[in-house]
Amino acid sequence: MAQTQRLQPGERLDHLLTGDLQIIQSPDVFCFSLDAVLLARFAGVPLKGRVLDLCTGNGVIPLLLSTRTAAIIDGVEIQPRLADMARRSVSLNGLDQRVRIVEADLRTWSMQEEVSGLYDAVTVNPPYLPQGSGDQKENPHLAMARHEICCTLDEVVEACARVVRRGGRVTMVHRPARLVDILTAMRRHRLEPKRMRFVHPRADAEANMVLIEALKEGKPELRLLPPLIVYVHNREYTPELLDVFYGRKTELADGDKEALT
Amino acid sequence: MAQTQRLQPGERLDHLLTGDLQIIQSPDVFCFSLDAVLLARFAGVPLKGRVLDLCTGNGVIPLLLSTRTAAIIDGVEIQPRLADMARRSVSLNGLDQRVRIVEADLRTWSMQEEVSGLYDAVTVNPPYLPQGSGDQKENPHLAMARHEICCTLDEVVEACARVVRRGGRVTMVHRPARLVDILTAMRRHRLEPKRMRFVHPRADAEANMVLIEALKEGKPELRLLPPLIVYVHNREYTPELLDVFYGRKTELADGDKEALT
Repeated sequence: MAQTQRLQPGERLDHLLTGDLQIIQSPDVFCFSLDAVLLARFAGVPLKGRVLDLCTGNGVIPLLLSTRTAAIIDGVEIQPRLADMARRSVSLNGLDQRVRIVEADLRTWSMQEEVSGLYDAVTVNPPYLPQGSGDQKENPHLAMARHEICCTLDEVVEACARVVRRGGRVTMVHRPARLVDILTAMRRHRLEPKRMRFVHPRADAEANMVLIEALKEGKPELRLLPPLIVYVHNREYTPELLDVFYGRKTELADGDKEALT
Repeated sequence: MAQTQRLQPGERLDHLLTGDLQIIQSPDVFCFSLDAVLLARFAGVPLKGRVLDLCTGNGVIPLLLSTRTAAIIDGVEIQPRLADMARRSVSLNGLDQRVRIVEADLRTWSMQEEVSGLYDAVTVNPPYLPQGSGDQKENPHLAMARHEICCTLDEVVEACARVVRRGGRVTMVHRPARLVDILTAMRRHRLEPKRMRFVHPRADAEANMVLIEALKEGKPELRLLPPLIVYVHNREYTPELLDVFYGRKTELADGDKEALT
């Protein structure tokens, strides 16, 4: 079957930034952004075992993670249209044996006994905006991806904490404006923030993104990584951002690598 | 009386970085560091009113703040030797009418009814290390300044929250390793973190200092300021650090300035 036959109206096939990966996207439904790529590079993932991506959207994070680990990767997405796109992308890349897309509400799905403490690592790029805040999109697909319509931040953190094993890692990308909400929720659910990195559009600009890695039942002590600057001037990426973007550099320190083997 | 007559054995007179200010220091008792200077520059202070500095040490922060505000400034210090040094520095700079040094334990002092909600702004550079952690100094003066011997982080935050008025600002400098403890304590005591800035020794190094400003009863929404980089290479200060150091640039945005008038 030709690849284009797998596409539905409005969809397009984009190259991902690593290896030969391709991904199905649709501006009307979901396109991945820099946030997802940075999360997939930043996250501490084991070389094998089980990895979960919540709010997986069109599956961009499981696809990118598949180049960094031999683990089984599950992706959970509540929107049927998006879960279907993600599944077709997984097939397109021949990853059906390693990546499984589950269409489910993370709140109820995470309460099943068989997933309790199952995962070595969990990633999540949740909706950033509280419901009713900001300029809520009329398109329901985009609104659900951006606003806390299907789940609140606390519900997302709680779900992560339920399904990750003791000593396992939960990594999130979010907006700095919500940082206190995130850190207090993590600690409340026994996910101790251990590594954090802020992303600034320019060296002299406020951060517009934060990457946070927490350890289930970890002891309190946070490392604050060097700032990641996106642009040199207005539109030219910094060399470091390009290194991260194209997977030439992951964020793990040597100590972390050891901890993950 | 000649200035040198005001010095006790082991003490020296150092120039502060702003105006003609001078300060009494002693390597055996207390010398101010970059942390205190950055806090004094970063803190949102009203043009008049009442300002408090807790854990004031040799009074470096009240002295530096006196150049930025016409407010009455109180400094609280538990160590008699340090409170005495601070008082003599205040006199030396002719600031007795505006700066008052109180020798007291902040835990009991802050519970007095007459200071409840009294201050428009509070600054604090507390001991960084939990008691028993790290390499605790044998010199009791230095140990009390570095370790949580006389007060825990939570007690410091609680004292700040008691004495600041509703809508007033509390600004703290601390180590990023303790960030989750700080933010959860602030929120617990109704001090909402609003502005935060990380200080990195170099652009590619982890942060070793964090500046946090919280608003009493503020609504949740944090701004994460551009990183402050201290050194260009190994020992050369960045132009931006020098601007902050010498008070040529404070950290306040225009919106903050308006809010403070």
